[in-house]
Amino acid sequence: MSIPNTSSDIVIFGAMGDLAQRKLFASLYQLERAGLLSQETRIIGVARHEEDTASFTHTCEESLQKYIKADELEPEILARFLDKVEYCAVNFTETESYQNLKAILDQSAERARIFYYATPASIYGSISRNLTRSGCTNTNSCVVLEKPIGHNLQSSNEVNDQVAEYFDETQIYRIDHYLGKETVQNLIALRFANPLFGSQWNQSHISHVEITVAEKVGIEGRWGYFDKAGQMRDMVQNHLLQLLCLTAMDPPDDLSADMIRNEKVKVLKALRPITLEMCNTHVVRGRYTKGVLEGNPVPGYMEEEGANPDSKTETFVAIKAEINNWRWAGVPFYLRTGKRMPEKLSQITVHFKPQPHFIFDESQRHLAQNKLVIRLQPEEGISLQILNKDHGLNKGMRLRSESLNLNFSQSSEQSRIPDAYERLLLEVIQGNQYLFVRRDEVEHAWNWCDQLMGHWANDTKPPQPYSAGSWGPKASDLMLIKDGNSWHEDQ
Amino acid sequence: MSIPNTSSDIVIFGAMGDLAQRKLFASLYQLERAGLLSQETRIIGVARHEEDTASFTHTCEESLQKYIKADELEPEILARFLDKVEYCAVNFTETESYQNLKAILDQSAERARIFYYATPASIYGSISRNLTRSGCTNTNSCVVLEKPIGHNLQSSNEVNDQVAEYFDETQIYRIDHYLGKETVQNLIALRFANPLFGSQWNQSHISHVEITVAEKVGIEGRWGYFDKAGQMRDMVQNHLLQLLCLTAMDPPDDLSADMIRNEKVKVLKALRPITLEMCNTHVVRGRYTKGVLEGNPVPGYMEEEGANPDSKTETFVAIKAEINNWRWAGVPFYLRTGKRMPEKLSQITVHFKPQPHFIFDESQRHLAQNKLVIRLQPEEGISLQILNKDHGLNKGMRLRSESLNLNFSQSSEQSRIPDAYERLLLEVIQGNQYLFVRRDEVEHAWNWCDQLMGHWANDTKPPQPYSAGSWGPKASDLMLIKDGNSWHEDQ
Repeated sequence: MSIPNTSSDIVIFGAMGDLAQRKLFASLYQLERAGLLSQETRIIGVARHEEDTASFTHTCEESLQKYIKADELEPEILARFLDKVEYCAVNFTETESYQNLKAILDQSAERARIFYYATPASIYGSISRNLTRSGCTNTNSCVVLEKPIGHNLQSSNEVNDQVAEYFDETQIYRIDHYLGKETVQNLIALRFANPLFGSQWNQSHISHVEITVAEKVGIEGRWGYFDKAGQMRDMVQNHLLQLLCLTAMDPPDDLSADMIRNEKVKVLKALRPITLEMCNTHVVRGRYTKGVLEGNPVPGYMEEEGANPDSKTETFVAIKAEINNWRWAGVPFYLRTGKRMPEKLSQITVHFKPQPHFIFDESQRHLAQNKLVIRLQPEEGISLQILNKDHGLNKGMRLRSESLNLNFSQSSEQSRIPDAYERLLLEVIQGNQYLFVRRDEVEHAWNWCDQLMGHWANDTKPPQPYSAGSWGPKASDLMLIKDGNSWHEDQ
Repeated sequence: MSIPNTSSDIVIFGAMGDLAQRKLFASLYQLERAGLLSQETRIIGVARHEEDTASFTHTCEESLQKYIKADELEPEILARFLDKVEYCAVNFTETESYQNLKAILDQSAERARIFYYATPASIYGSISRNLTRSGCTNTNSCVVLEKPIGHNLQSSNEVNDQVAEYFDETQIYRIDHYLGKETVQNLIALRFANPLFGSQWNQSHISHVEITVAEKVGIEGRWGYFDKAGQMRDMVQNHLLQLLCLTAMDPPDDLSADMIRNEKVKVLKALRPITLEMCNTHVVRGRYTKGVLEGNPVPGYMEEEGANPDSKTETFVAIKAEINNWRWAGVPFYLRTGKRMPEKLSQITVHFKPQPHFIFDESQRHLAQNKLVIRLQPEEGISLQILNKDHGLNKGMRLRSESLNLNFSQSSEQSRIPDAYERLLLEVIQGNQYLFVRRDEVEHAWNWCDQLMGHWANDTKPPQPYSAGSWGPKASDLMLIKDGNSWHEDQ
């Protein structure tokens, strides 16, 4: 992929916000540093505040100093980068207010325009309308939508409908930053470039798959905000289902964005709907109580500041998902995500079926399996668990489980792994949608989640308790034990 | 496997020889050190010299000081070990001369007796006869035969027939020390305990296999001795064919010695015979000329001391072997062994077939393969070559070939890897024949090699030249290039 010689105007709505200041400007700086922003590229911060470019640039500089490592903050590059930054005050909901922005954009009328909505989804429609009405868009415009877009299928459809009035699906880049992680993209290389894995990636050879996204943090002072969403909306509907799709999808015939997304949609459509009865066998909903994390006592969810005693919101979900298709019939995909877990850990563990016949010491039969662990966090890497002969002299033909490891940050000569937002912004600039979520993906994901959450809404019982600092309610372990399996970290 | 509580008398013929002093006593010492020799075990050195136990023990002690690492030579263990050693002078070819040995053995009439023939094979028959006639054997006796046993099928049959007059096949342990190497035994664990490899170990998934045993040494002053054998007899007939068998055999239903050896014999029987015509396409015979090794000039084979100008003996062989069975039809097994190669290297490289469809950058199509490298020397270990996404920011979806490595000596908590002879002696003591070569294996191996060497005998051309310090004649590379392949180290 070569450096684009076409230049873009990158317009960031919500430019003073946390996401923009913490992630977007830092990522754009890294693109500049890697020589991936053309000289003419402009980065136009947009927010409500009356401010001039000089003082805005100063704010950005301070953020960069905070979020970029000192040895990566080179004065020359920083100067070149800040030179590209402009500021434009806009009242997002007033069409007339966009005239200043139009004036700036008109300075380069033909240039590609990227409108990044780092604002609440409730005003995506309004911004889209005003951009169009004020003449800020040209034939080469696109919009980047941050999540969350709505809190269920209906509200998400409303937002998407509003944006769709003004932009075509090929112009819309929906962010799920998990798709920007190197290990997540590496799933495509791992599965489709390696015959060793590719030829076994199905129900004949794989017994089950675990997808864990564990957070150590709790509510971080945002109780009211989180309580409206819950872990299901916050993590499962987007990140976990995206990981499931990339792990489970059939091989796309090529790497084009729609080919890949077609295959992902097929997985979402094949997800077995969670019926009311299945809520007892296939779903565990948890909420953390007080506990100890790394030696420090931490409060329970219902003891956090601002807690509403009537809350039934979950901070933990475990789901035994099933995919009704030829590739995965009979292979459970165990999804799990929670807050206040013992460690920050995101990983996909693929368990291969055991050998059909076992000729070694009977007491070691349980060992005879292979596992491929794809680690997204904390250290991106993969590890393959295989069995070797234990080479102690007096061990006879005893087996020993060992891991072939590859830590991405250690393996690279150029050891820096790009942040997800760097990758995603670069793909937007290059006009490649394959790392962005298409509307039908969103819809099918909500559809599946809404059904499950519908059962919860009618359930008077609170979520099952688990101590902060544990791996979730006992029921989560039991769900796997019933199948003869266990979560990876227990083994 | 537990420590045997039955004790053995281990009788070593040729006890003053290089093999006994360099390998056998050192290995038995290591077994003592590991607590694997019972207290009553006796080690009886037998040779022609008139000598007493004290002076023989002193010789052994000197050898141990030379061949055992200082930190492994613990005075207490050494004393305990040397206490087990006795000496008995015997003229191998005279029955009466065995009476002293009988007297020693009769002190423990019921004990298992291991007769280790570390002598030329020409007297194996004579020793066997005299042991029997003199009453040195009991119902619990076995013999260990060192290689080489003969130089072709006929001469090997003669020796085996002579021994078979006195010992049953279940009492005969034929040494191929390659079978004692940890990595070689690990082939069994790797293939049969790991579904990931086990399920792909056939012509549907493997394109070709390389087996290389490269030596850096030349003739080491033994020109006349080596010239009678040549690399084919010295390395291919035994070590390389054994590695081929363990790599290619069908899975044995259990780990019993005969089950494994039955499967190995099936491979040897399925080897496609090398016809005269195939000598040009499937075989390369080489002989080194002068060259440079590690910066030092070294002489050619025909310039070594004692060289006979009429010699046609090969110091290098490369063979494209084919196995005519369901598992391996169409999969070449490239065997290669030579002296004066650039490095000492023994390894098996299993090349998996490429993915059927390639969706990445066309210029990277050649990368899309997996390789499993099983390294026997210099460092025992395995490495799996897989493809990952190159995680440079501006690489798009570029692939990068990376290795998942496992170095056995580094992976073990108890990092010492036992020497092959330690393992083999322990298996003899424990009465397990699975790491020893059964007679029909020897016969089928000779049969295949004899046919090939028969063509050479009628060929007036000398072997093809290669410079000392190179990987053999050009023809060896060309043989693989014609198939679209290349030796591992070229890639």
